[in-house]
Amino acid sequence: MRRAVAIEASAIQSARLASTRRRCSRTTASSSSSSSTETSVQLIGAGPGGADSLTLGAAKALARCDVVVHDDLGASSSSVLALATKPNVEFVSVGKRGGAARSWTQKDICALLVELGKSGKTVVRLKGGCPSTFARVSEEIKALRDAGVSYAMLPGVSSALSAPLSVGIPLTDRELGRHYSVCGAHDPSSIDFSAFSRIDTCVFLMVGRTLPLVVEALQGDARKAPSTPCCVIRNGMQPDERSWFGSLCDIVDKTTGESLSPCVLIVGEVVTLA
Amino acid sequence: MRRAVAIEASAIQSARLASTRRRCSRTTASSSSSSSTETSVQLIGAGPGGADSLTLGAAKALARCDVVVHDDLGASSSSVLALATKPNVEFVSVGKRGGAARSWTQKDICALLVELGKSGKTVVRLKGGCPSTFARVSEEIKALRDAGVSYAMLPGVSSALSAPLSVGIPLTDRELGRHYSVCGAHDPSSIDFSAFSRIDTCVFLMVGRTLPLVVEALQGDARKAPSTPCCVIRNGMQPDERSWFGSLCDIVDKTTGESLSPCVLIVGEVVTLA
Repeated sequence: MRRAVAIEASAIQSARLASTRRRCSRTTASSSSSSSTETSVQLIGAGPGGADSLTLGAAKALARCDVVVHDDLGASSSSVLALATKPNVEFVSVGKRGGAARSWTQKDICALLVELGKSGKTVVRLKGGCPSTFARVSEEIKALRDAGVSYAMLPGVSSALSAPLSVGIPLTDRELGRHYSVCGAHDPSSIDFSAFSRIDTCVFLMVGRTLPLVVEALQGDARKAPSTPCCVIRNGMQPDERSWFGSLCDIVDKTTGESLSPCVLIVGEVVTLA
Repeated sequence: MRRAVAIEASAIQSARLASTRRRCSRTTASSSSSSSTETSVQLIGAGPGGADSLTLGAAKALARCDVVVHDDLGASSSSVLALATKPNVEFVSVGKRGGAARSWTQKDICALLVELGKSGKTVVRLKGGCPSTFARVSEEIKALRDAGVSYAMLPGVSSALSAPLSVGIPLTDRELGRHYSVCGAHDPSSIDFSAFSRIDTCVFLMVGRTLPLVVEALQGDARKAPSTPCCVIRNGMQPDERSWFGSLCDIVDKTTGESLSPCVLIVGEVVTLA
């Protein structure tokens, strides 16, 4: 019933046309990117893992679509993709980790979405987490828009929120944390950590091998006290979830020798609520 | 099939026992608050509105539960509550806006959850958005924990992410926004806006009547340029969603005379991606 779609890189035309970025000065009663029955491509968040993390709206879109272009969704891929039940539905794995038959660049993914969108097929572009957060979704919507392909975005549960909650940590609390920030940490050298110095709760995604550098910068440029509570969560909400609690001064020692990727780091007094 | 549960305030015993807050210094292979078949109370995010915004996991929990204790979920209440299909399932509306038969204090809600949790019933505590974000969930988990009632938290789609996405704004972008913050804004006088001065993308929830104060503080203490792009979204992801785009120097003028509550304000260059 399902077959992997075979699309040659050479057949894919780049759709990255030059365009000026629109400055927003408009009022809308309904968004041009909102879902509609005529939408060709839906960019959908799959949540943190497993079919139970998808929204009912995402599940309906999967059940109706002709093609699923999906990231590597880890151990939960099969349960999620099983929601796409249309006869002859096609799957294209464009994940950057294992599972893809070839190595996809972001440019190729954009071109594929344009090509499929123009073909008249109903396309779901399935991303881990939520398209709002570190999903490179803006490159894909620019390509679709430049090519005149209609699109919509459907939110998903972000691991920035779900991983902490999975171990009992809400990100805000009336007493312990009035605001939170979310930042990717796969390249700490590119982050100005001083930006977080007065943010109550700080969440870093894509922490793993970078944990020691992030923890050092938080005590340095971000001026967080060494005693600030923190928690590292690996594979949040997955069956093999594991977490380590401590403070900035000891969390690196507590996780030495552990394989942490992919993991989330939460820093702030709200960690004590777990 | 459904009936409103009648619980007299006088019958509710307060469960707010004195307890010391545990300092976290532990390692877990699985969280004590993770979902299990023995969980008495599940604190669940309903997402931003409408049944399609719930996760499949939340829908399953609703289908299995004996009692639903729910906030005011706005116009979408009926479609969400219709997912609770067990015969004789009971509903208790504890919302602070209309719909509740009585005015519930947070203390009363905590006591009700403890009472129901101890009764042997399977309880869903349904909150708008995600329990991780401005849900006062920590007060409820403290009450349940102090009373020895097992609980779990299930994430939902947060309006902090879904409302921007609904109008086409991702919160992060490799060029325009490397990190984002989320803060509640119903009481701007309690917020130290200087904390956000170097955060790329700032999201404020519960903005409405406070918009002029928030916009003023962002250009003052937060040192954001008057030309910083911003967007106000009312009823994000609802059928009557409406949005206004502009910059910090003109968004108040553009929304003058409009009824904005409940709304989300997004401030930062990512707004130009819409």
